[in-house]
Order: sequence, then C-alpha cells, then structure tokens
Amino acid sequence: MFNFSYKNPVEVVFGKDQIAALSDLLPKGKKILMTYGGGSIKKNGVYDQVKKATADFDVIEFSGIEPNPEYETCKKAIDLAKNEKVDFILAVGGGSVVDASKFIAAGALFDGDAWDILEKATPFNKALPLGCVLTLPATGTEMNNNAVVSRREKGLKLSFCNNAVFPVFSIMDPQATFSLPTKQTVNGVVDAFVHVMEQYMTYDVNAPLQDRQAEAILKTLIEEGKKVLKNPNDYDTRANIMWAATHGLNKMIACGVPQDWATHAIGHELTAKFGLDHGQTLAVVMPALWQVQKEGKKTKLANYARRVLDVVEGDDDKAADIAIVKTEAFFNELGMKTKLSDYGIKKEDCFFIAPIFEQRGRKLGENGDITPEKIKQIFTFAQ
Amino acid sequence: MFNFSYKNPVEVVFGKDQIAALSDLLPKGKKILMTYGGGSIKKNGVYDQVKKATADFDVIEFSGIEPNPEYETCKKAIDLAKNEKVDFILAVGGGSVVDASKFIAAGALFDGDAWDILEKATPFNKALPLGCVLTLPATGTEMNNNAVVSRREKGLKLSFCNNAVFPVFSIMDPQATFSLPTKQTVNGVVDAFVHVMEQYMTYDVNAPLQDRQAEAILKTLIEEGKKVLKNPNDYDTRANIMWAATHGLNKMIACGVPQDWATHAIGHELTAKFGLDHGQTLAVVMPALWQVQKEGKKTKLANYARRVLDVVEGDDDKAADIAIVKTEAFFNELGMKTKLSDYGIKKEDCFFIAPIFEQRGRKLGENGDITPEKIKQIFTFAQ
Repeated sequence: MFNFSYKNPVEVVFGKDQIAALSDLLPKGKKILMTYGGGSIKKNGVYDQVKKATADFDVIEFSGIEPNPEYETCKKAIDLAKNEKVDFILAVGGGSVVDASKFIAAGALFDGDAWDILEKATPFNKALPLGCVLTLPATGTEMNNNAVVSRREKGLKLSFCNNAVFPVFSIMDPQATFSLPTKQTVNGVVDAFVHVMEQYMTYDVNAPLQDRQAEAILKTLIEEGKKVLKNPNDYDTRANIMWAATHGLNKMIACGVPQDWATHAIGHELTAKFGLDHGQTLAVVMPALWQVQKEGKKTKLANYARRVLDVVEGDDDKAADIAIVKTEAFFNELGMKTKLSDYGIKKEDCFFIAPIFEQRGRKLGENGDITPEKIKQIFTFAQ
Repeated sequence: MFNFSYKNPVEVVFGKDQIAALSDLLPKGKKILMTYGGGSIKKNGVYDQVKKATADFDVIEFSGIEPNPEYETCKKAIDLAKNEKVDFILAVGGGSVVDASKFIAAGALFDGDAWDILEKATPFNKALPLGCVLTLPATGTEMNNNAVVSRREKGLKLSFCNNAVFPVFSIMDPQATFSLPTKQTVNGVVDAFVHVMEQYMTYDVNAPLQDRQAEAILKTLIEEGKKVLKNPNDYDTRANIMWAATHGLNKMIACGVPQDWATHAIGHELTAKFGLDHGQTLAVVMPALWQVQKEGKKTKLANYARRVLDVVEGDDDKAADIAIVKTEAFFNELGMKTKLSDYGIKKEDCFFIAPIFEQRGRKLGENGDITPEKIKQIFTFAQ
C-alpha cells in the first residue's frame, strides 16, 4: 500500500424529504446565491421544495448553467456574486451545476482572473462556502473537492481540485431522481462506474480493503443500474445508485493505491471536440483502453472478472478478456453505445487527440506509459 | 435504506514514517499536551519520533493512561490542561489513550463537573482540538467522535459521542504496530471485526453497498488477521489491518442501516465486573448472542456465510449456523478464547447483568428486543 492522506469534511444529508433540512443547514442572516440549470428542477418539484425550505432566507437566483458548464456562464455568476456581495452558494442540480458552483465560489473570492484557476492551475485557499442539493447521481462532486469547467471557444474542458471547494453540506433525496430521463440515469451510472475503475483497474499493491470497497461499488452499480431501467420509481434502487455514485468519487477507494484517469482525459477531449456526453465518451474509451493496456492491468482485470462479474475462468489472461467483453456488454445492456461509429465518428477524426497530452507535458495512465501511438490504438479498438 | 446524515472531518495521514508530519500538522505557537499510556511508546521508538517532530513546539506530557481509561486519571489530566492553559492535545497511543484524550479535551472546556458528560450525557459543543498518533489498530476512535471511559469505584464503563471530539488529524504508521504483543494485536482485530458486525449483522434494509462495504472489511480482517500472527513485521499486513480497523468504526458502513451494539453493551459490563479485555468480552458474547437472535439475523448471517466465509450451503438456516460456528473458529484460530469458562467465569456470576439495561431504560439489539431473559440465554450459550 502507498502512503496517503485523506480528509473529507462534507456533511451528507441523505434520504426521503431531506430537502426540508435546508432551513437548518443554511447560515442564518446571510445572502445566498441559488444556482441551477435549465429548469428541470421546476418540473420535478425540487425547486418548490427548495423555495419552501429557504422562505426565511435572503436568496437570489442564477439559472441557466448548462451540461459541461461553460466558463462564460460561470463568469456571469461570479460577477453577480461579487456585485450582490453573496455569502453562500446553494447549488441545486447535477454534477454540472455543482461543478460550476464550485468554480463560482472560488472565483468570487479570487484575486485576478478566475480563468487562471483552470488554465494555469493557480493555487487559492479561499472560496465562498457552498451547499448542494443533488438531483443527478453521477460525478461524486457532492462529496469531493473537484470541478470541471469547459470553455468552448478555446475547445477546452479543464478541471481543478482544491479543498476550499468541498461542499459544506450535500443533500441527496433519491426521490428527486425518479423523473430523470433514462439517458441521464444511464450516463450517471456509467460515469460513477468508470470513476471507480479509474481508481481500481490499475496494478495490485496489496491493498485488499480498497480493492473490495471498489468492487462493492461496482457490483452495486451493475445490479442497481439494471434494475432502475425496469423500475425507475423504486426508491431503494434510486437510493443505492445515488449513494454508490457518491462513493465512486469521494476518494476513499483511492487511498493508498495507484490511479489511472486516462479514460477521463481522453474522454474530455471527445466531449470538447464532438459534444458527446461525458458518460458516452467513457463507455467508448474505457474498454478500448483496457485492450491496449491489458498486460499491465491483467491481475486486476482477472480479480474484477471473478469477484464482480462472477467469471469462473481460472486463467488470468482469459478472465481479463472476458472482463472487457462483459463490461462493454453491461454498458450496452443499459442502452449505452460503446463504439465511435455509433456516434458517427471515425477513428481518424480522433487522431489529433493522440499527441495532445504529451504536448501538455501530461503522462497518461497509472504508469505514465500511454504514448500517442497507444492513444491511436485505443481509437482503433473503439472504432 | 433508512435516511441518514454523515460527516467525518478527520484528516488521516497514513503510512511509513508519517509521524514526522506532526511538525506540519500541529498548530504553531500553541501549548500542546502530549498524552500517552504506560510507556510502550518509549520502547517501540514512537516516543522518540514524536519528540523529534515536536522539537520546536511547546509540549508538556501526561502519561499513565491505562487500558479502559479511568475517570480519575483523566480528571488529573483535565486539571493539568486547565492549569497549564493547554491549547491542543496530542494523543499518542491506542484506543484507550485516544478515548481518554477526547474526554480530557472535552473536560478542559466543560462548564461544571466533566463526569456529567459520561453519566448524565450532558451535551457540550466545544473541546480542545485534538490530534492522534495511533499505535494500536482496533477501536476506530482515530476517525470518529466516540470515547469510552471507566470509573472503577462505581463499576461503570460509559461512553459519549460528540462532534467536538473528532480528531483534527490522525497519523497512522503501520510500523508502529510491529512490536505489539500478539494478545493486543488479536484483541484489536477482534474488536474491529465486532464493530463491523454491530453495524452489519442485523436485518436487511436493501442497502447492498453498505453490506458489501462491511463484508469488505470483514474479509480483510479475517485474511490479514491470520497472516499477522505468522509474520508480525510484514508492512502490508499491518497496514491492511490498521486501515480496516479504522473503517470498522468511521461509521460509513452504518449509513442508512440498522445497528445492534448489544454485544458491546454486555461486553462492557463483563469488563467492568471481571476485568476482561474488551476484545475478549466481544469474542465471548457475540457468537452466543447470534445463537439467541438467530431468527431475526438469519438473512444477514446467511449472506455473511456465503460472501465472506465462502460457505456454499444453500439453505439460509444451515448457512446461518455455519456462520456462527466459523466465526467462533476464526476467533479461536487467532488464539482468542470464546467461552466464559475459559476465563474462569460461571454464567451465574453474570446473571446480575441481565436486568441492568432495562433498569437504565436502555433497549438492546437492533429491534430493542433483547430482554433480561435473553441476556441470561446469551450467558448460557457462552458458558
């Protein structure tokens, strides 16, 4: 096991009708900026629940945060937060709204151009306090210190990680997810699943607890992911997916083990270029990446095959192959396409991505060994 | 799944030679009270490492905290902390030292008699900040807000739980546990194992992630517990036990599920009366309690049998029986005795405990259905 540090101060308030707890969780006498997206919260009742719980608070609103939130949108909210002297940000929505709100919270107290947080990774140590009401389980942002923001004019999708943007609290009511379109539900399950894999599907460092904690999440997402398509209004199924997605990236399973994140890195470029959903890019890239990186990941692929997928094959090499096939089949069973061609994209159209990471000085993969040539191979397997 | 809240702000700093990180983690310019036990830290090198890392800090010491820490001892430390105007407490030791230090931290800022925190469960909302260097994995106190303190003159062993006593940080270097006597190592593994069971071995509420997270810890403790007896100086084995024990009671697996804690409640009385080690009492009580409570716990016992103990028996009733036998066998394999008679105690000598909880107005068990008569049955099975 590697050395590690872990700290996660987020207060999770989980369960039926918990949005009402906002009245206890929000700071009294402070000015609150409520941020949200395109208005789905007005259709599923979440907006009304939030307004009811915040009736005695001084709340202004900022709406229109898009999926893969845009820097320009965030910038407007930062200006609003500064002009209105906001004290606290309440993000109501999915991962995009929460990520944007983390950037807004940081930008509101940042000296200089907030864009530097993303492009130059300029460090900072303060942000407006932030609370969340999560409506879409997927990214784990409700219980971590990450955010991803895009700037389409530059073709960039960039992330930052800073302890100042841990949410103070995150409310999760699984009922708020009943009305999600199937596509968003599936995107969320796949996103959470791949988050776990980025922290698990590497090489063995004798960390059996972390391995099994990861497998626990994977098995839960497979079982509950299949169930939710049949019965989207089943509370426990929605609750299990929601809590599993949080664990996918609250970083507990990353303690003391190597991490990959190449699927995400390559996937972000596909989103930036072709506008694919984040979950779609992951489903396309990961199985192909495993093909290319099979030798280094073989022990873990075989463990995963046996413990999560109930493969009985004794030979590691064959078990690893079965794991790749079965994982892609799981995505397909959820209705998620896993080939570039499914989205009308040719592998050659993606080859421009191959040298990007080397140019940026970033090594991909848990061993830093994913060369531009290997990235081309990944697109070839994914075609 | 039940509704729940979860918050755990402890910063864990885990791994080889991490004690040196104290110089970064401790607050500068503050007066620090270093608390420890009977002096084992002077033999295993931990004391020297702490002194080196704190050379530039104003540190006073309080030693002599005993296993099952005594109220009178803590009281002396509280007086010292007040008289010396201490700002921060640094606990160096196992669960007893950390628990005592939590009580000292609370008592130092408590208005009135600190005993009320334990006996009257008087609420409080402030305590001196506390950091830990853990030397014995067992109780999980390094990553929770619990403490247990005894008062032998009254025959009491009482606990409290308060967010003000979450450690600010906990340093865990598995190397510090190499020199533990086998008995303490085994006590720790059994304690952690039973902590998991108190949060897992109840009834099914459709919370598959929490179930599997618990099973992950159990399986790790079984495997690594057996290994450590053969090779006590293996770093990874010690690291895996240490991290598993933390997860046994950082309360993540308790989210949204019923809890039992009757084994602990009855065990505390056995320690208070007969001076048995905490781990010993748990190993005696739990298998017997499962016999008595088998019907209500059957589904979970059978799941545990199949998923953790690799029992292939298809019938839940038989699988549950095998689970009880195999769990006791696991304790015995570690060298832990599981019968009252092993400790020279007759069941009749324990019967006075049977009505105690009812008298205190406390219902035992996840369904509150452990009557005085059932407690007598537990002692009968355990004889």
